[in-house]
Amino acid sequence: MKVAILMGSKSDYPLLEKTEKTLKTFGVVYETRIISAHRTPKVAEEFATNAEANGFEVIICAAGKAAHLAGVIAGLSPLPVIGLPIKASALEGMDALLATVQMPKGVPVATVAIDGAENAAILAVQIMSVKYPELRRAMKLYKENMEREIIETDKEFGNR
Amino acid sequence: MKVAILMGSKSDYPLLEKTEKTLKTFGVVYETRIISAHRTPKVAEEFATNAEANGFEVIICAAGKAAHLAGVIAGLSPLPVIGLPIKASALEGMDALLATVQMPKGVPVATVAIDGAENAAILAVQIMSVKYPELRRAMKLYKENMEREIIETDKEFGNR
Amino acid sequence: MKVAILMGSKSDYPLLEKTEKTLKTFGVVYETRIISAHRTPKVAEEFATNAEANGFEVIICAAGKAAHLAGVIAGLSPLPVIGLPIKASALEGMDALLATVQMPKGVPVATVAIDGAENAAILAVQIMSVKYPELRRAMKLYKENMEREIIETDKEFGNR
Amino acid sequence: MKVAILMGSKSDYPLLEKTEKTLKTFGVVYETRIISAHRTPKVAEEFATNAEANGFEVIICAAGKAAHLAGVIAGLSPLPVIGLPIKASALEGMDALLATVQMPKGVPVATVAIDGAENAAILAVQIMSVKYPELRRAMKLYKENMEREIIETDKEFGNR
Amino acid sequence: MKVAILMGSKSDYPLLEKTEKTLKTFGVVYETRIISAHRTPKVAEEFATNAEANGFEVIICAAGKAAHLAGVIAGLSPLPVIGLPIKASALEGMDALLATVQMPKGVPVATVAIDGAENAAILAVQIMSVKYPELRRAMKLYKENMEREIIETDKEFGNR
Amino acid sequence: MKVAILMGSKSDYPLLEKTEKTLKTFGVVYETRIISAHRTPKVAEEFATNAEANGFEVIICAAGKAAHLAGVIAGLSPLPVIGLPIKASALEGMDALLATVQMPKGVPVATVAIDGAENAAILAVQIMSVKYPELRRAMKLYKENMEREIIETDKEFGNR
Amino acid sequence: MKVAILMGSKSDYPLLEKTEKTLKTFGVVYETRIISAHRTPKVAEEFATNAEANGFEVIICAAGKAAHLAGVIAGLSPLPVIGLPIKASALEGMDALLATVQMPKGVPVATVAIDGAENAAILAVQIMSVKYPELRRAMKLYKENMEREIIETDKEFGNR
Amino acid sequence: MKVAILMGSKSDYPLLEKTEKTLKTFGVVYETRIISAHRTPKVAEEFATNAEANGFEVIICAAGKAAHLAGVIAGLSPLPVIGLPIKASALEGMDALLATVQMPKGVPVATVAIDGAENAAILAVQIMSVKYPELRRAMKLYKENMEREIIETDKEFGNR
Repeated sequence: MKVAILMGSKSDYPLLEKTEKTLKTFGVVYETRIISAHRTPKVAEEFATNAEANGFEVIICAAGKAAHLAGVIAGLSPLPVIGLPIKASALEGMDALLATVQMPKGVPVATVAIDGAENAAILAVQIMSVKYPELRRAMKLYKENMEREIIETDKEFGNR
Repeated sequence: MKVAILMGSKSDYPLLEKTEKTLKTFGVVYETRIISAHRTPKVAEEFATNAEANGFEVIICAAGKAAHLAGVIAGLSPLPVIGLPIKASALEGMDALLATVQMPKGVPVATVAIDGAENAAILAVQIMSVKYPELRRAMKLYKENMEREIIETDKEFGNR
Repeated sequence: MKVAILMGSKSDYPLLEKTEKTLKTFGVVYETRIISAHRTPKVAEEFATNAEANGFEVIICAAGKAAHLAGVIAGLSPLPVIGLPIKASALEGMDALLATVQMPKGVPVATVAIDGAENAAILAVQIMSVKYPELRRAMKLYKENMEREIIETDKEFGNR
Repeated sequence: MKVAILMGSKSDYPLLEKTEKTLKTFGVVYETRIISAHRTPKVAEEFATNAEANGFEVIICAAGKAAHLAGVIAGLSPLPVIGLPIKASALEGMDALLATVQMPKGVPVATVAIDGAENAAILAVQIMSVKYPELRRAMKLYKENMEREIIETDKEFGNR
Repeated sequence: MKVAILMGSKSDYPLLEKTEKTLKTFGVVYETRIISAHRTPKVAEEFATNAEANGFEVIICAAGKAAHLAGVIAGLSPLPVIGLPIKASALEGMDALLATVQMPKGVPVATVAIDGAENAAILAVQIMSVKYPELRRAMKLYKENMEREIIETDKEFGNR
Repeated sequence: MKVAILMGSKSDYPLLEKTEKTLKTFGVVYETRIISAHRTPKVAEEFATNAEANGFEVIICAAGKAAHLAGVIAGLSPLPVIGLPIKASALEGMDALLATVQMPKGVPVATVAIDGAENAAILAVQIMSVKYPELRRAMKLYKENMEREIIETDKEFGNR
Repeated sequence: MKVAILMGSKSDYPLLEKTEKTLKTFGVVYETRIISAHRTPKVAEEFATNAEANGFEVIICAAGKAAHLAGVIAGLSPLPVIGLPIKASALEGMDALLATVQMPKGVPVATVAIDGAENAAILAVQIMSVKYPELRRAMKLYKENMEREIIETDKEFGNR
Repeated sequence: MKVAILMGSKSDYPLLEKTEKTLKTFGVVYETRIISAHRTPKVAEEFATNAEANGFEVIICAAGKAAHLAGVIAGLSPLPVIGLPIKASALEGMDALLATVQMPKGVPVATVAIDGAENAAILAVQIMSVKYPELRRAMKLYKENMEREIIETDKEFGNR
């Protein structure tokens, strides 16, 4: 149960800490790397080519602007790749969203919401839960907790 | 290795035949259903609640306009849910894309490109390949074939 | 004359207080609930299924991002449903607007402006005024007051 | 139970015939008028000012481009006004949608999807059903039929 | 040489002070009014109907969101109407721009940039300069001054 | 009463014939030229510099894509310049609209709707009517005819 | 004087024939290749790494949807890279434009208009004309011819 | 090796200082000017007409809103022109981007990202490196440094 978290720039880390934190909650091991599709393309290629052999099961790629990281990794690895578009330009993240999700036939990227750092982690868990029953159980618990929490907030709110 | 393909309306089927066809290539069993988040909400709930027990491992949801199907299913099932936004309105599919991908914290939808019917299937295969080594092998073969095909087209093109 | 106000998250409440306040002005009773289409889908279903029997006449649903709440409720209840898209993401509320208004044939949502919290209340009053003559009278008065207020501001402004 | 259907131009009629047809299904009487906020503003004012007295309970306004009709009518009448944005320009109806839905505080327009002609009628029925129990019953039946139809299509589809 | 400046809400005044100031520079008389297409529609109608008789030669209309003011005034007056879209919503003024500029055949609105308060004044001057040679001369001077100013800034900048 | 109609390319002429035809209706003389801000910049400059001396009172500039023609002419002439954005690219005319209307402080362009060829002419007439009473009269007549026409269409429609 | 033309898919060739044709006009040698950033990433890397050594001076990259080709090549080669966004999806080429132009700091792509196939060639010529005086001369001639052609069309048009 | 940096307004300078700084790093001489396509059109024409003779090899044009500067300069000079769209309006720089990149056939502008001030400089260097081997070498070094820097940041990050 090992997930790779790649980010195009260290400045994305405050957002990705939430991804890490969420994965930790599920007891999922992760490795976070700063790898740029444009500035360290060879590192990106090397990473993607060896990701499977290195034991990763899902790769999360976070990038802003013309966000090519997820697509480039998805082109090079058979693993499922999650794309996390980051709001990092004047265009409110719309550029990153389109550059991540509009992938051509044959090379999908599983895209989550702009700045959806927790959801990238949860999707990774859901994907691995196809294989690991303990993650499936944890996922169900997570959903139940989320449900219960809102139901309680609703109740307290009703008593305000 | 069973995938559910849900579509909001029968008129989406010509597109989803490509999803079916791609899954078939990988030897993945699928069940295609017409289920609407808005018009048959109880069927949707029932389906989502029992999807895991019924042996599905991934759920693909295709919808246009205010595309809520994937989000509703994802709210009810712990399985990974793939959202396929369909161009079905004046707004070129932008409405379906945003309504599918911009999910709130806790309930991700793995979104692919607008009308990306084949990619929804391939992503499903990649997700299940976390568990099934034969799918991982098939996926690598698929990527190699795709690569070889383009290299050959490039060569022929060079000899034109 | 009872209106339901549903919000996907407690963080939407500061906005919805304006909805409550406006309803209060018209003497309309309301019940405000925190219900999420994705995180408490069963509560949503239960609420929608029983809303009519519980004496609600109009349901206001406020949600941001991939705003499915109004659509989900509208799928399950015969009552008129007002959708209030909330600006809660990088995309300035455009995602919530499209996810709320672009409903498929058969299941309309009466959508108001992004963050248009007062207008959601006023529309609810206008809808109920079809039945209650006192609300119609109050609505006329409201419009007259609004008119008078601007006319007076205009006059004072002219004397500046 | 009388609804007004206003359209800015006769060329919108093919779309609005669906609104008429849907209202007819519910036994709702309607009057369809060609009234332009910009080209016959006095007719618009007269219509709006007298609509309530003339027995209308809901007003549906369809317009394209800088769609002001619904807003203008809503400014002049206490009745609930449904705005139907029409795709009639290069901008795919986005102009009509924003010009219809983004109404200022105090004057809401209940906006439905771009070209959502049937939904404008259904929303009118839902609004009037607050008053008329027979419309509420018909609305429930409509939803049940819609549900049953899709369930049957799903079944037939499953047997293909 | 009299211009009307209409704004939908007093809160637009800080912006419109620039319009006033620019008109003053050209010695053009103006009258600024708070008139809303939706909240004081009768005042709007009255104003537009009598604007020509009252000696106005150009009407500037400023409004945000679903900005109908300019269109409504243009429907009622033969005078040239300048539309000034104001950024007043989540959508960055795009709603006001489209609601102002996308007017149907027969009723144009001379639209300037979002928040282009000075340009609304300058366009009014250019329009009136068709009639008044002194305004034409002033306009040429204005352009020469603007040119000279930038040339000087450029020079100083070069010497930095 | 002479208007210049400039178009960036001869392919825009079918649209601009409507501008010509509308001006003809009002008895306004026009001269139509093919002048490109980018391909014949010196002709553009010469034209703009001499337009006033050559007896033009208003300049209509039609262009698509990165539509600079109106802005360039407005930079060089004190005359009122009407910008007509043309839908001539993949982006549905949005590029031409923004490139025409979003002019910087000091150099306004009176922008009409995308492909609003008749409205460009009508706005030109309204502008010149500030000076020519006969055009003002014609403009009022035009509005009355337009009103009457729609009222009659409405009546006939009512008798269908 | 050798230019590389890369396209992500053979289906882009009809558009790129215009690029070839334009380069031919200037006597520039080119090599056209089908190379995909996602489907043949290793070919892309190899090409980019060796492009300079292979005598290319400029690289034109054409791609649609999440258009990563230009960015990937620009990450790997010191040569100037021209990005040609292609309209190949529901989103009218806006996705390709943003994915091409919004490159992060350090790795620019010289982006031309959506489907601007000729302009990609002309920009390549302008870039190489920095080195080759004969291309500069040809470029000036090209501009003069373009100017003359429009002036003549304008004249003929005037005599119609 | 001389580059011109033109900006429409002095207020753009803080951004363009980054362009200057980046050029300085490469030892490229530059001249920065304040020239407006709309406010000092004659200066713009003069500059563009003489730029080649004055020894410039590339021209960088920065402008916001309806950003015509790059297009106007490109129309008048055979030199390669780099367009830098600036976020200077309510529309987040989308207006400047479209007004810069969507140039008509025959007159390309090499467009970089919104506010991509460093990239404008780097692209200029890449263009001139076609001619100057020392710039090519510097460019390779720049890319290597950028790569090394990120690799080191990645390593340090891994040791955190």
